[in-house]
Parts: sequence; C-alpha cells; structure tokens
Amino acid sequence: MSNFDALIQDLVIANRILAKEEVVDAYGHVSVRHPENSNRFLIARSLAPELVAPEDIVELDLDGQPVREEGRSLYLERFIHAAIYGTRPDIMAVVHAHAEDTLPFGIAQGTKLRPVIHSGSFIGTEVPVWDIADNFGDTNLLVTNMAQASDLAKCLGGNSVALMRGHGFASAARSLIEVVRLSIYLPRNARALMRARQLGGEIKCLSPGEIEARNRGYSPYSVETWRAWEYWANKAGCSHLLTRPDDGRAHPPRG
Amino acid sequence: MSNFDALIQDLVIANRILAKEEVVDAYGHVSVRHPENSNRFLIARSLAPELVAPEDIVELDLDGQPVREEGRSLYLERFIHAAIYGTRPDIMAVVHAHAEDTLPFGIAQGTKLRPVIHSGSFIGTEVPVWDIADNFGDTNLLVTNMAQASDLAKCLGGNSVALMRGHGFASAARSLIEVVRLSIYLPRNARALMRARQLGGEIKCLSPGEIEARNRGYSPYSVETWRAWEYWANKAGCSHLLTRPDDGRAHPPRG
Amino acid sequence: MSNFDALIQDLVIANRILAKEEVVDAYGHVSVRHPENSNRFLIARSLAPELVAPEDIVELDLDGQPVREEGRSLYLERFIHAAIYGTRPDIMAVVHAHAEDTLPFGIAQGTKLRPVIHSGSFIGTEVPVWDIADNFGDTNLLVTNMAQASDLAKCLGGNSVALMRGHGFASAARSLIEVVRLSIYLPRNARALMRARQLGGEIKCLSPGEIEARNRGYSPYSVETWRAWEYWANKAGCSHLLTRPDDGRAHPPRG
Amino acid sequence: MSNFDALIQDLVIANRILAKEEVVDAYGHVSVRHPENSNRFLIARSLAPELVAPEDIVELDLDGQPVREEGRSLYLERFIHAAIYGTRPDIMAVVHAHAEDTLPFGIAQGTKLRPVIHSGSFIGTEVPVWDIADNFGDTNLLVTNMAQASDLAKCLGGNSVALMRGHGFASAARSLIEVVRLSIYLPRNARALMRARQLGGEIKCLSPGEIEARNRGYSPYSVETWRAWEYWANKAGCSHLLTRPDDGRAHPPRG
Repeated sequence: MSNFDALIQDLVIANRILAKEEVVDAYGHVSVRHPENSNRFLIARSLAPELVAPEDIVELDLDGQPVREEGRSLYLERFIHAAIYGTRPDIMAVVHAHAEDTLPFGIAQGTKLRPVIHSGSFIGTEVPVWDIADNFGDTNLLVTNMAQASDLAKCLGGNSVALMRGHGFASAARSLIEVVRLSIYLPRNARALMRARQLGGEIKCLSPGEIEARNRGYSPYSVETWRAWEYWANKAGCSHLLTRPDDGRAHPPRG
Repeated sequence: MSNFDALIQDLVIANRILAKEEVVDAYGHVSVRHPENSNRFLIARSLAPELVAPEDIVELDLDGQPVREEGRSLYLERFIHAAIYGTRPDIMAVVHAHAEDTLPFGIAQGTKLRPVIHSGSFIGTEVPVWDIADNFGDTNLLVTNMAQASDLAKCLGGNSVALMRGHGFASAARSLIEVVRLSIYLPRNARALMRARQLGGEIKCLSPGEIEARNRGYSPYSVETWRAWEYWANKAGCSHLLTRPDDGRAHPPRG
Repeated sequence: MSNFDALIQDLVIANRILAKEEVVDAYGHVSVRHPENSNRFLIARSLAPELVAPEDIVELDLDGQPVREEGRSLYLERFIHAAIYGTRPDIMAVVHAHAEDTLPFGIAQGTKLRPVIHSGSFIGTEVPVWDIADNFGDTNLLVTNMAQASDLAKCLGGNSVALMRGHGFASAARSLIEVVRLSIYLPRNARALMRARQLGGEIKCLSPGEIEARNRGYSPYSVETWRAWEYWANKAGCSHLLTRPDDGRAHPPRG
Repeated sequence: MSNFDALIQDLVIANRILAKEEVVDAYGHVSVRHPENSNRFLIARSLAPELVAPEDIVELDLDGQPVREEGRSLYLERFIHAAIYGTRPDIMAVVHAHAEDTLPFGIAQGTKLRPVIHSGSFIGTEVPVWDIADNFGDTNLLVTNMAQASDLAKCLGGNSVALMRGHGFASAARSLIEVVRLSIYLPRNARALMRARQLGGEIKCLSPGEIEARNRGYSPYSVETWRAWEYWANKAGCSHLLTRPDDGRAHPPRG
C-alpha cells in the first residue's frame, strides 16, 4: 500500500474513532493536510463520520473548494479547515466537532477551560472562546465562508483549541493521531474540571512547565501513541484498517 | 413504494430512532399528520417505540379516536397529538416523551429552559411549562382526555416545545424529521445549560436573531438533514428501512 | 406451563431486567412470595442476577432459611426479604439493591428523596432512611440476620422504599412487576431531583393527592404495564421467556 | 492447568475486567506479585489492557526491569508497581489507572475522598493525594523512574489507594481480585460522594469501625467474592477463561 493510500485509511480510522468516542455524531469532521501539496487537504464528503469509507475522501484547496470536479455534497463548514491550514503551516490535521461536554465552557462565562489532567495537556495553556456574533452578528452559528473561518483561525492564533460559543470547538495538531487524541481528551478534561469545581476549594491546573514538558516529550511515532490508536480503532470496529509495517512493530500513524 | 407507504416507513424509523437515542423508553410516542387528510394522524398502537413495525401504525382523528374499528389497545395519551394537530395547522408531526434530562426544568423553578447550543435552536425563544394541576387538580399526571390535551395545546401556543411538570414534554414541528431532531437535541441542550450553570457566571443563550436565522435557513429536504437522519437510522439498526430515490442522492424524508 | 412455572420464569425475567437496567450488578436480589404458601418466598441462590436461570431459584421461609436441604450458597442478605414478607402481608415482591443514584440520598442529610416525576410516584410520600449503625453500631453494613432485617422492616413501616445509609435500598410492592418498575424508576427519580436542585429555586414534588391518584389507577394487569415489561425483557435479551396467553393479548405478569 | 498458568489467566481476566468497567482505557495497568518469587511481579507488555492475552505477560524485578531479555516494549510507568511491591510485603497486586471520576479529587482541594458506601470501604480511612510536582517540579506527570515511584509509594504508606494529582491513582491489595474490586468501586464511591455533596447537608462517611469490620470480614476466597469476579468476567466477555475446580464450587481466584 502506498503512503498516500495508507494516509487515506488513517483518515477513515480517525473518522470512525471520533464517532465511537462520541466526539462527533452526525456532524463534525476531521481532515489532514495533503502530504505532497501543502495547499490542499483531505476530508470526507458530507457524511456522518461513522459511515466514512476511503472513497468518500475528497481533496480541497485552502479556499475550501474541491480540487477536482465534485458532484457530491461537501461539508458546509469545510472552511474551518481551510482557514486553519492557511494560517498555520505547522498544523497537519484539524477537527471540528460539538462534543457535548465542551459546550458549557463556551456558554458560561464563569470558568475558563484549562488543562487539569495530564492527558488534557495538549489543549495548551490558553483556550480562546470565539463568538461568531462578535463580528458577524446574528447568524445560524455555522462557519460557512472564508471570512468567518478566517476570523475563527485568527482567534485560535497559535493555540491548539478554540471553543466556539454555543456550537463546539476547532482543534489543530501536528499529526492526525495527535488531533484525534486531543479531541478525545478535550471533553474528558472538561468533565474533570467541571466536577473538580463542584468539589470546591482551589483547583490545581497543570502548570505551564508541565504542559511544556508533556509537549516536548510527545511523539506521534512512539509505542505509547500507537497503543491508544490501536485501542481506539479496535473499539471502533476498524482495527482491520490498521496498517503495520513488516517488522511487526508499531507502525507510526501517518500525517 | 407509494408515498404513503414510505411515510409509514419513516414513522417506523422515527420510533426506532427516538428509542435508540433514549428520548423514549417503554413510554412516549411520535405521530405524523395524514398527508391526504389533515383531520387525521398516524401513530403506533400501544407499544414500546423500539418494537414498532409498519403494521402497528393506526389512523386516529382529531378527537384521538381510531378511524377504523380497532381491536388493539391505543396509547392512553394519544389526545396530546390530537389537540396539537387540531389547534396548529402548521404542525405536521408531534412527539410526547419523558426524556430524562428535560425533567429537571419542569420541576425546578430556578432556571428557564432556553436554547444555548445551535442544535437546540429549534426549541425556540420560549419554552412554556405546563402544570396539569393548575386546571385539573390532583391527577395521575397523564393526559387522558381532550380537555386536558387542549389545555396543554393552549399552553404550547405557537411554540415548538412545552415542558410538562413532573412528566415530560410535547414537541411539534413542520415535519417528521424536524420533530425527531428537535426531540433529540432538546435533552442535549438541557444538559449543556445545566452544566453551564454549574460553571457559574453569565450564560450566553442564543439570541432571538440567531434562533430566527437558524429557523429560516433550515430545510427538512437538505443534504445536512438527511445526513443526520441516515446516521440515526443506522445507529438504531434500521438503515434498511431508509428509502432513497433513484438518482442516488439524498431523498427527503416525507411528512 | 403451570402458573407456578410461569411465575418462576417471571422471576428470572425480573432478575435479568434489573441487571440490564443497572439496578443490580453482581450484588442485589429480587424475590417473590410463594403463590400457594404465604410463609415462603422464592429467590435465586447466591448468583449475579444477570446469570440467574429457573434452576437457580430456591424456596426460603420467613426466617430466611431454605425449605429444602440446600447444598448451594444463599444470598447473605436474604433476611431482608424474609423480614419484609413477615411484617407486611400486603407485599408480594421485594428488591434489595445498590443502584448508584439512590446512594447519595442515604449519605447526605440535606435533601429528602421525594417523588418528583410521575413514574417515580410509586416510591410514595415518605422514603425513610435506615442506618444500621443506629441500633447495631459498627458493622460491615450488610443485613445478615433476622434482628437486623426486622429493624430495617420496622423502619420501612408501611412505605414502599427504605434507603439504607451507605449501602442501597429495599423496595416492596404488591407484585413482581410493580417492584421491578419501582426499582427502575427510583434512581431515575433520584437523578431528576438531584438535577432539579442544581437548577435552583423551588422544587415541585408530586402532591400527596397525585401520588394517591396514580396508585389508585395503577394495575399490574394493564396493557400499559405489559408494555414496559415486554420492553425491558426485550432489552435484557430475554423476551423469549415472556409467556403470553392464547388469545394473543397481553398476559398479566404473575405474582 | 498449573497454579502459575491459572494465575496468568486470572491476570488476563483482570486486564479485561478493568477495561470493560472503564477503570483503564488505552492506558493503565494491573500486576500481580510472582507467587514463587516475592522479588518479581507479572504485568502485561505495553498494550491496552483490553487486548492483553497470556503471551503478553512479562516478569519484572523490583527495579521494574525485565527478568528475561525482552524485545517488546514495556509500560513506561511499570516502576509504580515495582516500588509498591518493594516497600509493602503485604501487597500482592497493584493497579495504576486514570478512572475518570477519581480525577476531580486529585485536582480540587475542597473535598477529601473518603469511603461513603459499603463497597467503597476498601479504600480505607485515608486516601493521600500525591503531587509529583512537590519533589520533582515540572514533569510530564508520568512516573518513569524508581525515584519518582518510591516517592509515590512513600506517600501511599500503609494505605490502599493514593490519588495522583492531575493523573489518576495507584491502588494496592492483598490479592488480584481485591485490587480489581477496589479499583472498580473507587470511582463509584467517588461519584456517590460528589453527588452527596451536591445534595447538601452533613455527609455520613463510613466510620473507622465500619471500615475495619468490613476489612476483617472480607475474604478473597468467599462465594460472594467469586460472584462478582464471575459477573465481571462474564460482562467482559472472558468467562471462558475462568478456572473452576473439579468439585463444581467456586474456585478462589489466585494471587
């Protein structure tokens, strides 16, 4: 299997994992930057992530337009991905989703979302909240053009996650597996923080030094990373799509 | 398949989806107005929604009485549907259910249920709470006649959802898929609001302009709508009941 | 099938339903009074309810002792059932369980468990909390003899449910299906009340008149009752054990 | 089957149970002391516990190093187990995990984790919270060497559980089944306490005398213990791995 085909397969796995872990439902999407053309990215056609197969992957440019003539419907909010790839050359993979337990932090003004558990460290020291109403007034809250998407990308800045008020979040990372991992642990970290607040007293967040130490030590090609990827793929019923190298050891997820 | 048969099949799918999404359990029901006779509606006989098949659908009039001689038991609370269809010509589909996370808002007086997430916008700017005790005193809380049902319909007024104190809710929409969607996102919106309150500080609800913008832009015949319908049907194990037109594109749910 | 054999089968169904609905796990038990000898009751040998089959049912007397020589292990806490049958001739079925969401109400002193939803009405106007420490000091909290069980039965009095501090609850009803229903809706009612409290403001409980109206109108032999029984049995994977009479209509659960 | 092979099989069952009960996910691990050499312990190679099979079990010494040449990757945090076995001769089995509902108690300073339900008694009167930052400053929060592990073991002292701030917990017991049971009921007890706090008023924890009475009366070889082990194994889909003695009665889990 070519590297490109394997990446497509990884993107399918990412779709299925995010569905199984309830990060996405009928809505929400994950993309990966094209490995050979940094001005393009790969994402499913308009389809529930759980149902995505390799033939559903389309190639879009940084304006969110399909590279090839495309008769099939596309995600309305594909511009989110385009704008983030356009402004962040370091980013190789993007998720947009509505994971339920992230929503309260975009609605209530009283508690900032911060990493409080080690697996949540990848959300970073700062999680900005983007409110589409600030610059676009009364909308249907969907990000349906490049102007809105660029505004969101600007709010995201150099961070890993931006919450979207009353809607969900956008997350961005250096690889497909990292963005999946980040998006799974984001709601878990949110729940831990919500419940810690209910217990009362001071909350100990991860320190900037701890966040940095974790980030520095993290590799998408490590055995520990593969362990989670394999586990989630197995739970999502698509472990048969995992590609392993000939030596029988963990194969790094691509992209 | 005739349009009528396809609508019956859609109603079966709606039953199964609502069961799978835990909007209904052994109790709760969904109906659709008869497409050719606006004084009648279609609903299952007394049966847990999860178990409903096409042959379980019966036709009732706007007094909640069966149009044909019917030996089988009917839902005790079918009058809820009759009264809403009778007073709201714009309504094509109705759900009554006890979804757990909607209940607290009908019990506690401290927080009004309002849309706080974009998928919850369809509950509208106002969600009245109906208390059967106000006009009927001590009852078993069930809506078992037209007088009670008409009182509930009056409380619902021109809104999309009325909470029923200590009991559940009634929701109404322009199509079957819309009432299913509304009823699924209602508890989700309720949870987001409950948790946002726990985080403290000001709560940002959707603005009236945002609610209106979403309502205006929504079509039960869009690709996005079909995406959710297909996703839910698949989860509920009844994707084989989905009817697709010959052109291979998304087929609008009927009703 | 004889009525007795059908009752045994219903007791097996009850075990499986309570397991599936997470009222019991490895621990917890359900019993039914012997239909022909009111001084005896039927209950499984020491086994997780999910795994109970007809041959696991044993017959005990009102001291909690087996009527026939019994080589198999019995539930340590079978005395709970014996004491309730002994003091309450109106009771035909008993459950003891640790359902998670009932526990906080036995631990915290700040909120009394009261019915707030119509399906929770059967817990009654008063839910006493029994603390084994009051009369027995430091124990392992298990009810392992008749003295402790009688003390619990005395606390239960004429009510339907007694919470057991730091342990669980005992519930009692006029029939097997009623005690199952009561035990399923008890934690649901508890959750609704917990969440209503978080929303703030006054809480509207069911009025004594509403509780009475529901109790008066309830029949274990109604179509509505069968609907739930059939639904739960189906979910628990044991609908094949349901017994239906020849006329094809709902058969009342026995006991 | 030899006792040693049966113990390996029990360790596999323990892995699967902890995964099914959501105590571990891709991460977290369980070990058992070697029955014939108290300076060694048995644990899986680096693999999600759900996927562990007998051939994945490796033998490590009390420095966390493999006894035999080992080409396969090992858990980064295996030192936690080594340090606890090294300092606590009474301990035969150890779990390290991130069970979600234990996390808030390691983050918030306002409420101490204490046993409030009888099944939670085994966490003991005192649950210390270890913060890796106290002695090691800014780290990635993982326990990846003996110095860190020994510091954790020192904090654990003679207790059964230590919470690890922003990370998870380590639990230790006299047998494999006890450490599994402890680790399953730990988050359950945490939830009961969290919710009890929300109900307000005084919280009744288990008294020291009750904790002691339960501990005294508990045997890993009892029928009640086997009942839970069999139930969990069945839920986890590995009841076929259970080993029963010839007499057909419950066989005590080993180790």
